[in-house]
Amino acid sequence: MTATFGEKIKMTIFGESHGLAIGCVIDGLPPGVELDLEAIKAEMQRRAPGKSKLATARQEKDAFIIKSGFFEGKTAGTPLCVLIPNSDQHSGDYSKLQNVMRPGHADYSGKVKYKGFNDYRGGGHFSGRLTAPLVFMGAVAKQLLAQRGIYVGAHIASVWEVQDKSFNPLGESAELFAELAAKDFPTLDDNAGEAMQQKIIAAKADCDSVGGVIECMAINVPAGVGEPFFDSLESRLAHALFSVPAVKGVEFGKGFALAQLPGSKANDQMYYDNGTVKTYTNNNGGITGGITNGMPVCFKVAVKPTPSIAKVQKTVDLAVCENTELAITGRHDPCIVQRAVPVIEGVAAWVILDMLLVGER
Amino acid sequence: MTATFGEKIKMTIFGESHGLAIGCVIDGLPPGVELDLEAIKAEMQRRAPGKSKLATARQEKDAFIIKSGFFEGKTAGTPLCVLIPNSDQHSGDYSKLQNVMRPGHADYSGKVKYKGFNDYRGGGHFSGRLTAPLVFMGAVAKQLLAQRGIYVGAHIASVWEVQDKSFNPLGESAELFAELAAKDFPTLDDNAGEAMQQKIIAAKADCDSVGGVIECMAINVPAGVGEPFFDSLESRLAHALFSVPAVKGVEFGKGFALAQLPGSKANDQMYYDNGTVKTYTNNNGGITGGITNGMPVCFKVAVKPTPSIAKVQKTVDLAVCENTELAITGRHDPCIVQRAVPVIEGVAAWVILDMLLVGER
Amino acid sequence: MTATFGEKIKMTIFGESHGLAIGCVIDGLPPGVELDLEAIKAEMQRRAPGKSKLATARQEKDAFIIKSGFFEGKTAGTPLCVLIPNSDQHSGDYSKLQNVMRPGHADYSGKVKYKGFNDYRGGGHFSGRLTAPLVFMGAVAKQLLAQRGIYVGAHIASVWEVQDKSFNPLGESAELFAELAAKDFPTLDDNAGEAMQQKIIAAKADCDSVGGVIECMAINVPAGVGEPFFDSLESRLAHALFSVPAVKGVEFGKGFALAQLPGSKANDQMYYDNGTVKTYTNNNGGITGGITNGMPVCFKVAVKPTPSIAKVQKTVDLAVCENTELAITGRHDPCIVQRAVPVIEGVAAWVILDMLLVGER
Amino acid sequence: MTATFGEKIKMTIFGESHGLAIGCVIDGLPPGVELDLEAIKAEMQRRAPGKSKLATARQEKDAFIIKSGFFEGKTAGTPLCVLIPNSDQHSGDYSKLQNVMRPGHADYSGKVKYKGFNDYRGGGHFSGRLTAPLVFMGAVAKQLLAQRGIYVGAHIASVWEVQDKSFNPLGESAELFAELAAKDFPTLDDNAGEAMQQKIIAAKADCDSVGGVIECMAINVPAGVGEPFFDSLESRLAHALFSVPAVKGVEFGKGFALAQLPGSKANDQMYYDNGTVKTYTNNNGGITGGITNGMPVCFKVAVKPTPSIAKVQKTVDLAVCENTELAITGRHDPCIVQRAVPVIEGVAAWVILDMLLVGER
Repeated sequence: MTATFGEKIKMTIFGESHGLAIGCVIDGLPPGVELDLEAIKAEMQRRAPGKSKLATARQEKDAFIIKSGFFEGKTAGTPLCVLIPNSDQHSGDYSKLQNVMRPGHADYSGKVKYKGFNDYRGGGHFSGRLTAPLVFMGAVAKQLLAQRGIYVGAHIASVWEVQDKSFNPLGESAELFAELAAKDFPTLDDNAGEAMQQKIIAAKADCDSVGGVIECMAINVPAGVGEPFFDSLESRLAHALFSVPAVKGVEFGKGFALAQLPGSKANDQMYYDNGTVKTYTNNNGGITGGITNGMPVCFKVAVKPTPSIAKVQKTVDLAVCENTELAITGRHDPCIVQRAVPVIEGVAAWVILDMLLVGER
Repeated sequence: MTATFGEKIKMTIFGESHGLAIGCVIDGLPPGVELDLEAIKAEMQRRAPGKSKLATARQEKDAFIIKSGFFEGKTAGTPLCVLIPNSDQHSGDYSKLQNVMRPGHADYSGKVKYKGFNDYRGGGHFSGRLTAPLVFMGAVAKQLLAQRGIYVGAHIASVWEVQDKSFNPLGESAELFAELAAKDFPTLDDNAGEAMQQKIIAAKADCDSVGGVIECMAINVPAGVGEPFFDSLESRLAHALFSVPAVKGVEFGKGFALAQLPGSKANDQMYYDNGTVKTYTNNNGGITGGITNGMPVCFKVAVKPTPSIAKVQKTVDLAVCENTELAITGRHDPCIVQRAVPVIEGVAAWVILDMLLVGER
Repeated sequence: MTATFGEKIKMTIFGESHGLAIGCVIDGLPPGVELDLEAIKAEMQRRAPGKSKLATARQEKDAFIIKSGFFEGKTAGTPLCVLIPNSDQHSGDYSKLQNVMRPGHADYSGKVKYKGFNDYRGGGHFSGRLTAPLVFMGAVAKQLLAQRGIYVGAHIASVWEVQDKSFNPLGESAELFAELAAKDFPTLDDNAGEAMQQKIIAAKADCDSVGGVIECMAINVPAGVGEPFFDSLESRLAHALFSVPAVKGVEFGKGFALAQLPGSKANDQMYYDNGTVKTYTNNNGGITGGITNGMPVCFKVAVKPTPSIAKVQKTVDLAVCENTELAITGRHDPCIVQRAVPVIEGVAAWVILDMLLVGER
Repeated sequence: MTATFGEKIKMTIFGESHGLAIGCVIDGLPPGVELDLEAIKAEMQRRAPGKSKLATARQEKDAFIIKSGFFEGKTAGTPLCVLIPNSDQHSGDYSKLQNVMRPGHADYSGKVKYKGFNDYRGGGHFSGRLTAPLVFMGAVAKQLLAQRGIYVGAHIASVWEVQDKSFNPLGESAELFAELAAKDFPTLDDNAGEAMQQKIIAAKADCDSVGGVIECMAINVPAGVGEPFFDSLESRLAHALFSVPAVKGVEFGKGFALAQLPGSKANDQMYYDNGTVKTYTNNNGGITGGITNGMPVCFKVAVKPTPSIAKVQKTVDLAVCENTELAITGRHDPCIVQRAVPVIEGVAAWVILDMLLVGER
């Protein structure tokens, strides 16, 4: 499907970092939904660049224009086209990168894929900027989920080797998620957050970058969401999450750590809690057999360090077919983990909503 | 899409563990491919149960019948229907499990999903037995990939806390993959393999089970495979891998460990090697921007311990809405990691072939 | 999607006329539906060959085996695999047709498509026999639609130049549909039906064949079924109807005749009938803007004459690249219109049910 | 899929007649295609309104802006977003139509579908204006097909009861198609064209409208295009054609007339013509078994008369749940057949290109 994903709520994404605009078409929204545009803007601001010394200096308001599917303040039920114009491109910064490949980037794989015809400036279609439409989609999905009492939140579980506290796998509150969303640097433990930020500043000073891990949770998702086999909720979530640039790992519940436990400790034993089936632990992240079991859905995502660094790196110049060296100048994030948090939440909200609607029959 | 996955080579899966048969329909195979049925049978045998003390005693030959799409020893180009009859069901073993939910299994989530009408015996549609059609699909995909010089291999990277050596991320040989495929317990280091098997036997003796990690690699995949955004090769692989029962984590290249490295160490610096662009390291697992860069594609998968254990566990009885305890009897694998190896390879081979064909235009 | 169609109720079709079996996988049926197997068998018998002098003498019971997704007499909610074994093949009849192309058949286009590797016997995958799974699907869909009070019926509107009476476009009764379904040769006017049958017998005597038109109607379909633009109900119905071998035209309501009317006569003027919006006429066949308006859905389908005729025809022999002549021997229908009636009904029932479920959100 | 169609060349459509813009996202174009923007504009002008007394007076230049996927004059290989701003809306004309349903329009079915939240002005998402993106898509597809020597053309086969001559089913020339495309009122016989135009003017004077039939042909399509069963070329073409507003019938080759012929006359007998397999007649419209046979692909489409007429019509007022009468004022086409010609050609070009690419493996 390439540029389109989703079964009931389909999103088609388009745009290049330094083209006229990026955006998306969202198809399948129910009609008559009063969108809270201010809430969407606030969500977009969480991702937007130019806010602090931790991120790129590129100033993009990520202002959006809804071109269709929205009538008298409500969804019309027809496809919603959202346009996010590009404004603060410094395309000159990139001209020399047409043939000199940035290590760790999609420059080379993209050039091969598109036979050299792709817009290479700023990563083009591969730019992290393409996550802005995902945040828009997620903001809309969150509003629809909230009507059903479902909430999604996330925090920075780690940056480099600095660890935050973990979510309680048995559940957190919508209030905590709101608190986290209000933070510029969303961690549970602010001391850890401070240490992470120091690490990011140090990396920047060192012409380097750092990555991290994001932990995400959705609460009040009813049991029975997800389809067997190829549309397991894990499959659908992982599919969309790995579409987010820089994501290199996804694990549900205890994930890789589960592989080191005996079954007797890995299994989530069950009990009735006032007529509701619950589990004493939630090592499976709320999903068994690919389908939700009523416990909180939780997963972690590994985000690699920003590949754009000012340090000198060895690479190739395709114009002359020779080895060369490159120190990337221009404006870059020494860490994108904090900006990726609303993206990951947004993807989770969208996919969960989509599969919830798929299962309603 | 639920039961169907794949863009050019679509597979539709069906069946229940204790029904008449399981199987699949494979649509999109090129016509005129002479299938090596013996090689397919050998691949099916790698997954088949009943072979050793490490696995369930259920005797299933996993014999398959090709009902359509195969004419005079070659693919006809039309849909291939493969039927794998069930033969050695002991359905009586499961009768008491209709309402007593096995912890860690899909019993409860499936029952909610299907409103209690699903065939619960032996896990029904959620059974690990459903991976047999994936192995068939993978065996066919491997034959088609081999014609292009592409090979897929895997080994058990760990069982419980016992670690095997790692693949060299810069590449291994087709011969090594063949050697591994010939082993009953495929590890690079046979001492590690022996220790893992001791651990499995100990777990079984303790009425318990263990999980592990599988490392998989595909060599000679050309650069440019995978589509941008929603059909990144990582998205497609993860989607299919998370459809395999018991998989709880997927990471590409160094994966979660990348989140702890600085960009200067995470980036794979590049050079020309006799006219070919290569990287000095392969931390990205051969994929950047969701598209292959010509280096080996490598990833790891976390497999949780078999949920079926003979130890007494707390759970619920939905018939009487009461808490209860359960010690699962019947024939179960104390570890499914070794049987999952050909499944993971097969899924990788299929998805890589599929995306290779998608990109050829 | 090739072998798969449907959004909520997906059907994957497989098989060749002279292979081991034909069949389908149906994915998306709600769980807990008690299928009336006798009613399905009766529906299959309406299409089955070997019943009269009007049809091929091939004896196929079209007996089906449900291999999965069906548990204790009810749908399990998981994919239903239906196998219809082939029994009465006379493959010898076809051996000389490997390279001599039958005019009007898919022999040549199929051979090019599959590079000569397809199973050419009896038309292989292109055989009319592949409509048997469609009738199964339709029989299941009819049972689900009947639970909502929706009924589908059809009659032979014409054979050659002999015309039957027309359905009243403002609606017919479920009883009439049942009466028609009980007839071997379903026409509204039995005299017309008799004349059609005489024409068929005459065509057979003349080593020739005839085609005809089928009129189909669905009553009590609520307004609002169908999606805008690419999933208009007309688009979805036409897509599936043109998949039925021998269908060469589809028109909704007055169809081509509408093109000769002025707007003032073509428009269906509207009124309230006891609180329900209705139209005085139904020239649009119950669909405007691709979406149902609450009036009966009606359409006509043109079925070409059976291409297999005993008359000598000019054609090509691909083995020697020369012109040749061919008189097709073997068992063939001088007319397939009457056997196509349950197929057309079945396709209509399936697509309407599918789009009904798609729209429920 | 609703707003998206196509397998290799996917198009997602959006927009409402009186919203900010309409447009589409085209995904899957090969990279490096130098688009002839002037040729696209010329094609858009063929459909654009405001050109003559035969069409609506609404002045829309149908000017388009390519927002993404287009770099240095060539396709980048990434999704192409095309925006066509709306400029000359007279939305006031429509205010009273919010609750008074126009007969023959999607007003009522759309209102039910979208629960009254859709943008009703000018037909909203159901407006014929949405065909402009189809013409853009078709113009691009024509350029890609021309590189392979494939050309698509169409003419007005009839308006009301006035008939044009027919295409020679054995093939026409690219030059003739170009001549037709250059005509404001594309008929083969200009006398017939003149009579049709008189009829349109007369209908307008009578506050009425007329419909007609369009005949379309694609030449030099190789044999083997189209997939078996659900993706037959007839299925795919009909699917997309029935998405075009006002289309009520589609027939391939002789279509409905085939149902009145004996097999001996309907079958296209075959012969070798200088090593190429051809047929003496082309009653099947170049498609047998859903797959092209190398003869010209030809089909006809029935276009109903414009539902918007100034004559008084009976209808309902949903605001007060009462019967009422309506004479539609505003600017309307007394006939849309001539403007639909490039739309039908465009859809044909797109679908044929798409299926050609699907089959290339």
